[in-house]
Amino acid sequence: MLSFESDYTEGACPEILRRLAETNLEQTPGYGLDPYCESAKERIRGAFGAPDADVFFLVGGTQTNSTVIASMLRDYEGVVAVRTGHIGVHESGAVEYTGHKVLTLPDHDGKMDAGELEDFIAAFMADETRDHMVFPGMVYISFPTEYGTIYSKAELEAIHEVCCGRSIPLFIDGARLGYGLTSGANDLRPEDIPELCEVFYVGGTKVGALFGEAVVFPHHGAPAHFFTTIKQHGALLAKGRMLGIQFDTLFTDDLYFKAARHANEMADLLNGIFLEKGYEVFIDSPTNQRFYVMPRERAVELHGKVRFEDWCPAGDGKVAVRFVTSWATPVENVLALRDLI
Amino acid sequence: MLSFESDYTEGACPEILRRLAETNLEQTPGYGLDPYCESAKERIRGAFGAPDADVFFLVGGTQTNSTVIASMLRDYEGVVAVRTGHIGVHESGAVEYTGHKVLTLPDHDGKMDAGELEDFIAAFMADETRDHMVFPGMVYISFPTEYGTIYSKAELEAIHEVCCGRSIPLFIDGARLGYGLTSGANDLRPEDIPELCEVFYVGGTKVGALFGEAVVFPHHGAPAHFFTTIKQHGALLAKGRMLGIQFDTLFTDDLYFKAARHANEMADLLNGIFLEKGYEVFIDSPTNQRFYVMPRERAVELHGKVRFEDWCPAGDGKVAVRFVTSWATPVENVLALRDLI
Amino acid sequence: MLSFESDYTEGACPEILRRLAETNLEQTPGYGLDPYCESAKERIRGAFGAPDADVFFLVGGTQTNSTVIASMLRDYEGVVAVRTGHIGVHESGAVEYTGHKVLTLPDHDGKMDAGELEDFIAAFMADETRDHMVFPGMVYISFPTEYGTIYSKAELEAIHEVCCGRSIPLFIDGARLGYGLTSGANDLRPEDIPELCEVFYVGGTKVGALFGEAVVFPHHGAPAHFFTTIKQHGALLAKGRMLGIQFDTLFTDDLYFKAARHANEMADLLNGIFLEKGYEVFIDSPTNQRFYVMPRERAVELHGKVRFEDWCPAGDGKVAVRFVTSWATPVENVLALRDLI
Amino acid sequence: MLSFESDYTEGACPEILRRLAETNLEQTPGYGLDPYCESAKERIRGAFGAPDADVFFLVGGTQTNSTVIASMLRDYEGVVAVRTGHIGVHESGAVEYTGHKVLTLPDHDGKMDAGELEDFIAAFMADETRDHMVFPGMVYISFPTEYGTIYSKAELEAIHEVCCGRSIPLFIDGARLGYGLTSGANDLRPEDIPELCEVFYVGGTKVGALFGEAVVFPHHGAPAHFFTTIKQHGALLAKGRMLGIQFDTLFTDDLYFKAARHANEMADLLNGIFLEKGYEVFIDSPTNQRFYVMPRERAVELHGKVRFEDWCPAGDGKVAVRFVTSWATPVENVLALRDLI
Repeated sequence: MLSFESDYTEGACPEILRRLAETNLEQTPGYGLDPYCESAKERIRGAFGAPDADVFFLVGGTQTNSTVIASMLRDYEGVVAVRTGHIGVHESGAVEYTGHKVLTLPDHDGKMDAGELEDFIAAFMADETRDHMVFPGMVYISFPTEYGTIYSKAELEAIHEVCCGRSIPLFIDGARLGYGLTSGANDLRPEDIPELCEVFYVGGTKVGALFGEAVVFPHHGAPAHFFTTIKQHGALLAKGRMLGIQFDTLFTDDLYFKAARHANEMADLLNGIFLEKGYEVFIDSPTNQRFYVMPRERAVELHGKVRFEDWCPAGDGKVAVRFVTSWATPVENVLALRDLI
Repeated sequence: MLSFESDYTEGACPEILRRLAETNLEQTPGYGLDPYCESAKERIRGAFGAPDADVFFLVGGTQTNSTVIASMLRDYEGVVAVRTGHIGVHESGAVEYTGHKVLTLPDHDGKMDAGELEDFIAAFMADETRDHMVFPGMVYISFPTEYGTIYSKAELEAIHEVCCGRSIPLFIDGARLGYGLTSGANDLRPEDIPELCEVFYVGGTKVGALFGEAVVFPHHGAPAHFFTTIKQHGALLAKGRMLGIQFDTLFTDDLYFKAARHANEMADLLNGIFLEKGYEVFIDSPTNQRFYVMPRERAVELHGKVRFEDWCPAGDGKVAVRFVTSWATPVENVLALRDLI
Repeated sequence: MLSFESDYTEGACPEILRRLAETNLEQTPGYGLDPYCESAKERIRGAFGAPDADVFFLVGGTQTNSTVIASMLRDYEGVVAVRTGHIGVHESGAVEYTGHKVLTLPDHDGKMDAGELEDFIAAFMADETRDHMVFPGMVYISFPTEYGTIYSKAELEAIHEVCCGRSIPLFIDGARLGYGLTSGANDLRPEDIPELCEVFYVGGTKVGALFGEAVVFPHHGAPAHFFTTIKQHGALLAKGRMLGIQFDTLFTDDLYFKAARHANEMADLLNGIFLEKGYEVFIDSPTNQRFYVMPRERAVELHGKVRFEDWCPAGDGKVAVRFVTSWATPVENVLALRDLI
Repeated sequence: MLSFESDYTEGACPEILRRLAETNLEQTPGYGLDPYCESAKERIRGAFGAPDADVFFLVGGTQTNSTVIASMLRDYEGVVAVRTGHIGVHESGAVEYTGHKVLTLPDHDGKMDAGELEDFIAAFMADETRDHMVFPGMVYISFPTEYGTIYSKAELEAIHEVCCGRSIPLFIDGARLGYGLTSGANDLRPEDIPELCEVFYVGGTKVGALFGEAVVFPHHGAPAHFFTTIKQHGALLAKGRMLGIQFDTLFTDDLYFKAARHANEMADLLNGIFLEKGYEVFIDSPTNQRFYVMPRERAVELHGKVRFEDWCPAGDGKVAVRFVTSWATPVENVLALRDLI
């Protein structure tokens, strides 16, 4: 059955499988201390214009979020995120499990507002009882967000300025970074990201890899002994070169961005079909996740023909639904939707 | 350069890569809710004679240890392990990071002694101050151990009997389980394992997979909501079928045990060479890790020709060294050692 | 300077100091294993009509909340509280520090609504992604609340019914329990409390003791080895009898309730004065904390004459202020306010 | 019945109770922000010759240990202690509960050896696998130790020198500090302590107070926002002045040291009696805890007449027993022992 359920339903870009096969019997040291990881790091530094960056490879997103956040917070600090942030909703309390509170702000189609962030921190600083409260010690945003929306350069600059003004690091969850940077609506260059945050990660799992996330601390900013922290969090892959080979391949010949761009193009095509058919857009996302409103009965019927996610109730017997494309989505699959919806 | 450094220096059994390639563009649900995982679980239940077992797939060993241990202990309990146990030495305090103490017993070539375990628990129970202490809530052993040694069936039965008598679950870390079960010195059948513990895992990372550990709770014994616990620990793979495909392949046509048996045979061959050359055995391991004593100068020189690990000082200017074979070790590599050592 | 800043500005009921002095040189075992603690437990069981209750003494409120909550949740569970609940705002993240998320509901003058609680849990249960979320494992309310408001018997029954229907324990933070039970607006008897929750505590610190909170698990419901959990949380007092003597005294001759009733009477008197002077009530509390709206300038001026807390901005250049009475507040102090405000 | 069970069987020095009574109805701010705490801090700075010290008051010893240790360690670090250290044995895993491992060294009558400490850290630094291990991030010793023994100035200097050389802070648990500093065998002045560690605490609970421990960071060394950390650990007393009044009293007219000296004198007297009666000394302690060997039957019989602790089996049907004196022990009680033992 056709599936637009998520961007992690398929395997990996064929180039990755090919290189895994080619290198299979080579013997290299474990834990990421191999030449493939070194090469991949260098390519990522190049792609993001951050020659001094510290780069680390972890396996998955939730793991990366809790490892990075815990490593950068002091015990008495929490992380600020919007109410719909992945860390606060769909990570089974992984951040709290490390002892830290997620402090929440309202979201605007998944995005944080710089002004609201400033107000929140200012109110905290002005509160005479703040020594009995959790200190905001980091700001977490996703690019793109849970809703596929993206920050403009101006919006991201505004948030980073607030963070700098308060000496609070900004962490960008880039689980779908590629889809954001190759969106037609995006005005950020890859080189802008390291300038506008203290740490971000380049998502592999959802953008063409079997698994893997590349954490980047621009300008040598990694916390002391971050390798050990990764190990302590159970996030250190023994055969670390599997991560190196994947990211080395993704950042060769621009594969990462080509794969992401394809997904966005398929999403644009899909969007045209939905609009043509008269569906109401639920959230106006410019990346590979698209959201529409449909009568619940229609959705129920459609679930028999194609896989997609019911996102949330949309009132009046309607439901918001999500369709997701990936690097692997064939154009025929999208076109096939025209007859189904 | 030739390497006997560890059993995770190569990729995966070629059968695994082949199936990853064959299935690459299929679309399946994430998080292990796919048919490959189901099939793999069924094969594992079959291989270990445990038709009612709950089976879960995680990515790596340290992660598996801390997730399983934390899920089965109450907050006031700790886990009992020998002094040289992996969880107490080489996991960067991952168990303590979840809030639990590792209570240590002496080791005997890496093994726990059932009598010492009984004495330890009996002493705890007899201690009038025990309410101010950490309760022993689980027993952790490795099969094979850190030193490649294995428990006889009688030894394992004795430990399990102590655990049952005290109502304390026994956890077997099987990161190298295959190498233990196919050792010539072993008298345990795969079906014995589920009978003699409350939880164990079948290591994939070190026995032919790219990564992956299969946690088995015999007789429906999984802790409530263990899926959520895996997620909370950052141990849930989004593209979960990668684990299913690997274990499904490993437990098809006995591949797992064949791969392990090959490594043991290569280790036996290697051992013959070391003995022939007059080296002293440091620890008498019957699996794929072998330990010898050599003059430090000889070891330094040898490091220029072949990769292996210096294990520990052995007195008198000598050093204990470790040589490890794997499912992938070619016989020529072992034979090449004869001229080098 | 006159102070209505809080109910923990003075020492303890003189009867307590007297008994501490009388018993000072007696020698008793530590850690609460003394006759005074036994007697105090028995008196508390009597006062709350819970002859089978397990009773434990801890030192302070934040400590009690995090110890009780952590002891009753599984790792994958969180505690549900209203947005203004003390555990979510003014305990420096003590609950998160133990690894658990505080799941928030809206508050209504500090209170939880049973319907909203039911909806929240129902929505969680209906959410197909719930295995990636934090499970609601306990419900936390305060009686009285942060705003001095109290639940009616019907309201508390409704909340408890939701909890029972979902098999989720209800925890009542009774840091100011005495003030609630002796309020003129209250329709709950002490004997009702054990019937309507799985655990509650009787606050001593804010109701006449130097310090101390008595945790009550009705019907033998204490978590296994709760003594050890208390110790692990650093909440076990070495000279435990200091807690026993205090609670034994408070629950002799009804002292606890008399002391609380006095504070409520002083608060009623104070309220009459504020109303007489034409102040607007901010939140209509029937206990020892009272909230009024006043122009910010007036508040600033008044701070020079009497201690009280600015609670929050109230719009239009106004501020909400809090005045608190205690068991120790002399009637003259209240009357003196008439000339100041 | 006569008791030599511990030094926390009685209440507090009468001077303390008197001042609690005198100040009882005063109104002061909570949480230690009162004049009594300020005065007490100043007196402690004076008594220990540390005019720039940051001083904080906590309630009990286990709480103080885990709060201080967690506040000074990074997540990947553990604390080094001897095998018999209180934090590793009798605190119910409170340190591990905060996520940190206790790394153990052998003890010598309860004491750490500087050479063994240096060797341990040197071995860690030389271990090529150290990035997979827990980093030693703090050293913990007690003065006096669990066995009542004390470090000479030279011994303490040697340990501190190792710590300084490795940039690892030294923490002295002074739960019984007074008894150590007033021992006839001691050659350390109070002013030496701040020079020879990065943090220590002055135990009140066991030296004349109802409860309370004063944490001292010499030279403004407190971790950032330590107040909030105390709150997060549930260790912040609402009526904080109770701690201030107690320590202010203890450090007025040398009461703290006088009380401790009395206990030591009583212990010397008791020791004379035991030696006169021909008992074998088990551990030669020069402070208020004394250890002797006696036949088990004799011990059983004696338990019917006087309270004391059986410490551990001493072989051959014998048992080591502990007798403890306190600031409150009357000379008649000690003399009464002559007829009993």
